[in-house]
Amino acid sequence: MRRVNHYCVILAGGVGSRFWPVSTRSCPKQFYDILEVGKTLIQQTFVRVFELVLLENIFVITHEDYEPFVYEQLPELPKSNLLLEPFMMNTASSIAYASFRIQLRDKNASILIVPSDHLITEEKQFYEVLQLAFRKAVQGEHLITLGIKPRRPDTGYGYIQFVSEDHASPIKKVKAFVEKPSREIAREFLYSGDFLWNSGIFVWNVRTILNAFRKHLPEMYETFYRGKGKIGSEEEQTFIRSIFPTLQRISIDYGVLEKADNVYVIFSRFGWSDLGTWGVLYDKVPKDTSGNALMGKKVLFYEAQNNIVYLKGDKTAIIEGLNDYIVIGTSKALLICRKEKEQEIKRFVNDLKIERGEEFL
Amino acid sequence: MRRVNHYCVILAGGVGSRFWPVSTRSCPKQFYDILEVGKTLIQQTFVRVFELVLLENIFVITHEDYEPFVYEQLPELPKSNLLLEPFMMNTASSIAYASFRIQLRDKNASILIVPSDHLITEEKQFYEVLQLAFRKAVQGEHLITLGIKPRRPDTGYGYIQFVSEDHASPIKKVKAFVEKPSREIAREFLYSGDFLWNSGIFVWNVRTILNAFRKHLPEMYETFYRGKGKIGSEEEQTFIRSIFPTLQRISIDYGVLEKADNVYVIFSRFGWSDLGTWGVLYDKVPKDTSGNALMGKKVLFYEAQNNIVYLKGDKTAIIEGLNDYIVIGTSKALLICRKEKEQEIKRFVNDLKIERGEEFL
Repeated sequence: MRRVNHYCVILAGGVGSRFWPVSTRSCPKQFYDILEVGKTLIQQTFVRVFELVLLENIFVITHEDYEPFVYEQLPELPKSNLLLEPFMMNTASSIAYASFRIQLRDKNASILIVPSDHLITEEKQFYEVLQLAFRKAVQGEHLITLGIKPRRPDTGYGYIQFVSEDHASPIKKVKAFVEKPSREIAREFLYSGDFLWNSGIFVWNVRTILNAFRKHLPEMYETFYRGKGKIGSEEEQTFIRSIFPTLQRISIDYGVLEKADNVYVIFSRFGWSDLGTWGVLYDKVPKDTSGNALMGKKVLFYEAQNNIVYLKGDKTAIIEGLNDYIVIGTSKALLICRKEKEQEIKRFVNDLKIERGEEFL
Repeated sequence: MRRVNHYCVILAGGVGSRFWPVSTRSCPKQFYDILEVGKTLIQQTFVRVFELVLLENIFVITHEDYEPFVYEQLPELPKSNLLLEPFMMNTASSIAYASFRIQLRDKNASILIVPSDHLITEEKQFYEVLQLAFRKAVQGEHLITLGIKPRRPDTGYGYIQFVSEDHASPIKKVKAFVEKPSREIAREFLYSGDFLWNSGIFVWNVRTILNAFRKHLPEMYETFYRGKGKIGSEEEQTFIRSIFPTLQRISIDYGVLEKADNVYVIFSRFGWSDLGTWGVLYDKVPKDTSGNALMGKKVLFYEAQNNIVYLKGDKTAIIEGLNDYIVIGTSKALLICRKEKEQEIKRFVNDLKIERGEEFL
């Protein structure tokens, strides 16, 4: 049942550089059908939240450059619900902007925040968790995050530690946020049982989150607050362009949630992946008898096992003597990297940016 | 000094499949500037023989499909000196065809046969050897090959064993031709001192080679001989198309030279490579401090050593954790193969042909 005061903000400004060279500055992975299922990741996200939220209450926030992708891939989205950022920022400023905009429409809005480029399976459980989250969000000043029960000691995810008071309730008080841990610490987290993966999916009332901004990121709050009259007017885009260079580039987790004492996490068991790396994708796609995951037209393998190979276009390949590698080819770039080093790809791409400039990404 | 009865035939019909995916059925390596020196391999060959042979005496023989490449890359070549074959054959039929054609022009022609896709350095020595070869060719019925003093126990080359009678003379009587040997045998060849690399470069009088065809490949000889009147006439191409399917696909080495007893080899020391494999190319091009040979615009290496990387077009690459590999990328295909397995590439490409058909090569 979709309620008129339920809103959703799809965050679509990321670059996904660990997915280079498919995900690039000029076309990030949310605009690709990276799983080859017939829909791009943002289309999948849109269809998923449309089950819960009225079309006119769905917002997308992304970089100005990606406006054409959104129009093309989400033609149903009301044009005024597309919020454009002039710079690559981080999640805090995106969420602040969207919150000020939604507040104009409904002071009692309950907002679901979702990344545009994640994979969710077992959607029925996802919807059940969200109903619970929306209920909790109106019961008080609650900032609600969804935490996924970890299935392995993943070092690529952030973790949320919860206070284990009431074992029966899936809604837990948050004790701490922890950034990507080492393998050893991730193992401890897994076995301790009171750490969950931070899904980056949040639910709260617009009032609650704006109060939290005022308290924990007061400068950012003030900057938006001073231009309140321009948001929703014809001057909105000019205003946004003028303030964005002054805003702090910080994530909502660091900027707000870590500092707040009214954060809750819902212990969730639906299938979730941030599709953050090629190795994660490897787990999601079919593999041949040698364990090679092949996304592409035609590859012959010789003494090659457990590789992930993604070749865009009608590309033929011969791969000999390679085990446990990531091999990605596009018309513009090639990546060959050991799977165990996939977390480094972001750094490599950064080196490339330094050497060649943004346009080569 | 170029003599009016010195002729040259450039053999340009090969596919160079060990150089896949740069060298393909649709554009073989002789038509690429694979060394990035500013001239394609066939252009380098042409310029080289032009020092020795009058322009009107230079012939090129290749497959019909490559006619446009020859016109484009060798605009100086007289059109009537381009001989076109309707099928991919081997060297014997190409040389027979060219010999019958040249005989029409000059019954006393001395002919230099050169592959179109080899690298030659120290050209002064090359020219000196050829002067010697041309002299020897007119002293009798001599079939002359150039043999290169081996510099390593190469298993990718054919060898020529000579009879060591007169140590002072560089012209030796040939004892045997040996196809690509094993590593162990190649080592023995190297240390024995009486084996040379078979360069595939030959010199002989047209009369001598046609006599040799008559004796050792009589069917092939007869087929051409019966249509003698058509060669050089307007019917030539129709005649060639009609006989080619019936001709034996055999190399000049197997079909003629191994059987003949009037074969000589000139002990040669000029720099020579058949550029037959990526590994050979690796030896010819500059390398960075990690031993990576890079032909392409921009590649970042991380924990990667002694690789040969060739990326066509303005392609960016990140290569991590790879040692001693061949990595070749074109717009249509990708090859990743250990250098030690480069001789297998031909077989892999053949598998690809079986699976996908010629058009994918």
